[in-house]
Amino acid sequence: MSDTANDDIRNMMQEMGHQARAASRELARAESGAKNAALTAMAELIEQRADQLMTENRKDLEAGERNGLDAAMLDRLAFTPERLGVMAEGLRQIAALPDPVGAISDLNYRPSGIQVGRMRVPLGVIGIIFESRPNVTVDAAGLCLKSGNAAILRGGSEAIHSNQALAGCIRDGLAAAGLPANAVQVVATTDRAAVGALLRLKDHVDVIVPRGGKSLIARVSEESLIPVIKHLDGICHVYIDDHAQLDKATRVTVNAKTQRYGTCNTLETLLVAEGIAPRALKALKPLFDEKGVELRGCPRTRDFLPDIAQASDADWDTEYLAPVLSIRVVAGLDEAIEHINTHGSQHTDSIITEDYTRARRFLREVDSSSVMVNTSTRFADGFEYGLGAEIGISTDKLHARGPVGLEGLTTLKFIVLGDGHVRG
Amino acid sequence: MSDTANDDIRNMMQEMGHQARAASRELARAESGAKNAALTAMAELIEQRADQLMTENRKDLEAGERNGLDAAMLDRLAFTPERLGVMAEGLRQIAALPDPVGAISDLNYRPSGIQVGRMRVPLGVIGIIFESRPNVTVDAAGLCLKSGNAAILRGGSEAIHSNQALAGCIRDGLAAAGLPANAVQVVATTDRAAVGALLRLKDHVDVIVPRGGKSLIARVSEESLIPVIKHLDGICHVYIDDHAQLDKATRVTVNAKTQRYGTCNTLETLLVAEGIAPRALKALKPLFDEKGVELRGCPRTRDFLPDIAQASDADWDTEYLAPVLSIRVVAGLDEAIEHINTHGSQHTDSIITEDYTRARRFLREVDSSSVMVNTSTRFADGFEYGLGAEIGISTDKLHARGPVGLEGLTTLKFIVLGDGHVRG
Repeated sequence: MSDTANDDIRNMMQEMGHQARAASRELARAESGAKNAALTAMAELIEQRADQLMTENRKDLEAGERNGLDAAMLDRLAFTPERLGVMAEGLRQIAALPDPVGAISDLNYRPSGIQVGRMRVPLGVIGIIFESRPNVTVDAAGLCLKSGNAAILRGGSEAIHSNQALAGCIRDGLAAAGLPANAVQVVATTDRAAVGALLRLKDHVDVIVPRGGKSLIARVSEESLIPVIKHLDGICHVYIDDHAQLDKATRVTVNAKTQRYGTCNTLETLLVAEGIAPRALKALKPLFDEKGVELRGCPRTRDFLPDIAQASDADWDTEYLAPVLSIRVVAGLDEAIEHINTHGSQHTDSIITEDYTRARRFLREVDSSSVMVNTSTRFADGFEYGLGAEIGISTDKLHARGPVGLEGLTTLKFIVLGDGHVRG
Repeated sequence: MSDTANDDIRNMMQEMGHQARAASRELARAESGAKNAALTAMAELIEQRADQLMTENRKDLEAGERNGLDAAMLDRLAFTPERLGVMAEGLRQIAALPDPVGAISDLNYRPSGIQVGRMRVPLGVIGIIFESRPNVTVDAAGLCLKSGNAAILRGGSEAIHSNQALAGCIRDGLAAAGLPANAVQVVATTDRAAVGALLRLKDHVDVIVPRGGKSLIARVSEESLIPVIKHLDGICHVYIDDHAQLDKATRVTVNAKTQRYGTCNTLETLLVAEGIAPRALKALKPLFDEKGVELRGCPRTRDFLPDIAQASDADWDTEYLAPVLSIRVVAGLDEAIEHINTHGSQHTDSIITEDYTRARRFLREVDSSSVMVNTSTRFADGFEYGLGAEIGISTDKLHARGPVGLEGLTTLKFIVLGDGHVRG
């Protein structure tokens, strides 16, 4: 019985994969105008159907309350007219971005007489697996569509009614623009076996993007037979060099830690050069006290701040996602880089310095997806970087590294133009 | 006993991985001058030690004869002074290429005041698994070094003495330039368990590049826990459109099929539009007869060439690597694109046409890593494309697609410059 049910899920996902592949071929050659018309139509439908969307969302909220979801989760799940407006606006912003598909670059004549260049093309079919925020349904659908990819979206079971209602707007928006409805498919079952089946569709799905907490991403990475664009941790560092200007150091450090606690680009470990440590730590302590941030220090940090807790070895490898900051005093740049490359998660790391040579070395030698000088780590974000939007952040090295926008959902093929040229 | 031996191999490969990772950090910040000095020193050592290299190579050739290697394999294995010269020259050419590492692009101011750009950085550690040709040892070492990556090379057991002798030149060349000897490690055992162990070193190795026959690549792809840059098949097509010029069509088709039979960019299936089929097939038949190429046709092809064999369904999915060509008559462009996207291997496909609109559609809609107009598929090659060199060809879509040169062994990280900027 359970096996039969699993077979049904597998068959359903196979069928979705097959339909996605077929739709992806149509989408790859769709004109920008049609894709933008679909995005705009989706935005309008979300606004027009606000009442219906709120009604469906209420079913999820009521179920969530019955199932004991906490207030924060219920809040993330809830639609409001404002939030629906933000979703619609997001789609219009994606419509306004340049279409990456078909762009030809580096088309040059070779000594043989042929012209060789590269054309940007969609990856094909993208699978997105995400948790409670239903706005991901709309964001992800928009980004995949604009980049010419078909999408299979699997949201959290607690948002099933909300997601299906949004899927209706997406489908009708595609149809209004004459694009295949299967270009964006939203999985309609809450059965978790659907995730496992999706992660095995390697003939039909080209890349998987998980969005959510670390346990979701770890599970997806572990199980997937398909390449995954992901980051697991955001253990971000600020290193205050002894040639830092103190006001910039405190401003950036406090912003990187406290502007938001729960984001992957939030500061988790502060490194301070011993030359500036007495002044920097003394200046920072009251600022963090005021924000209620718990400090945990290495022994040398505690020489200057004796009343804070001692950091354990585990602290250097921990993403708190909370008002907690570990602090380590280092001899200088070399030790800072060594610490970051050993304990960091290759997400985002920033040096605060006025020293030209040290800034230059930090930029080159820190092996992270975003490396910064005199800038808050909180800027590591597709919008802030000018990508227009963000499907996720990658700390891997293959294909995409750092915030991933439309370009990360495409690849470059070679095109060659000749006039009867043959190889001698 | 066997378990102990396998443990030894695993430990040895772990240790190599660990050393490679350490060396990769040094290499990532090595100056271009040092890397070029090492490449040049390696080239000189290969020339200076020609006698010793030939002596070691002779051991492999004698073992190969004893083990019944065929003449073609023995020929691929053999060193000659000319071949050693070509290896040395290849290293000098790599030295002469621009260093991709550290190049900064797209550094622009954002509305927030920060500058965001991208810096090209090495992937880290590359594992190369290859078969009999020992020149791959030198090529791969040179490309990995120039792109700032550490390399672990595993050649065929039949070339073990030749590869170890080349490894000596490589190691001494690195030392002469003050670079870490572990930047290039050549596996010294012929035990096949070493390949399995290498494919599991996912904490130490960032990407695997297999070079060799289909069975090697299939095995590596199947077993690897590390991402693989690869192509499995080269089922390349030429489509002769009915707006083709006949002389270009015959010239390109014959070159694509017959210039070399055993390469992955060789033509395997010819598609001919029905409007030009009578003339094109009549013109091609004697040219292929002269070269001794066996033709296998669809029923409509055999209407025009009744004395050729009938193609089976399997022919459309076969990479012959031999003087055999399958031919299918199609109604026109749509059927040709459909055939290529269904039966092709996303390697290299070319249209022969003078029609602007069809050329434009073919370039966009054929979903292959190289798509050509009026050009022989034999041009699909890193050197011909101006990449300077080639570590392999990828028919995958993530990271690298088509011939892979130095750039494919690197990735782009984000760099961000500010002046105390914080996020509001």
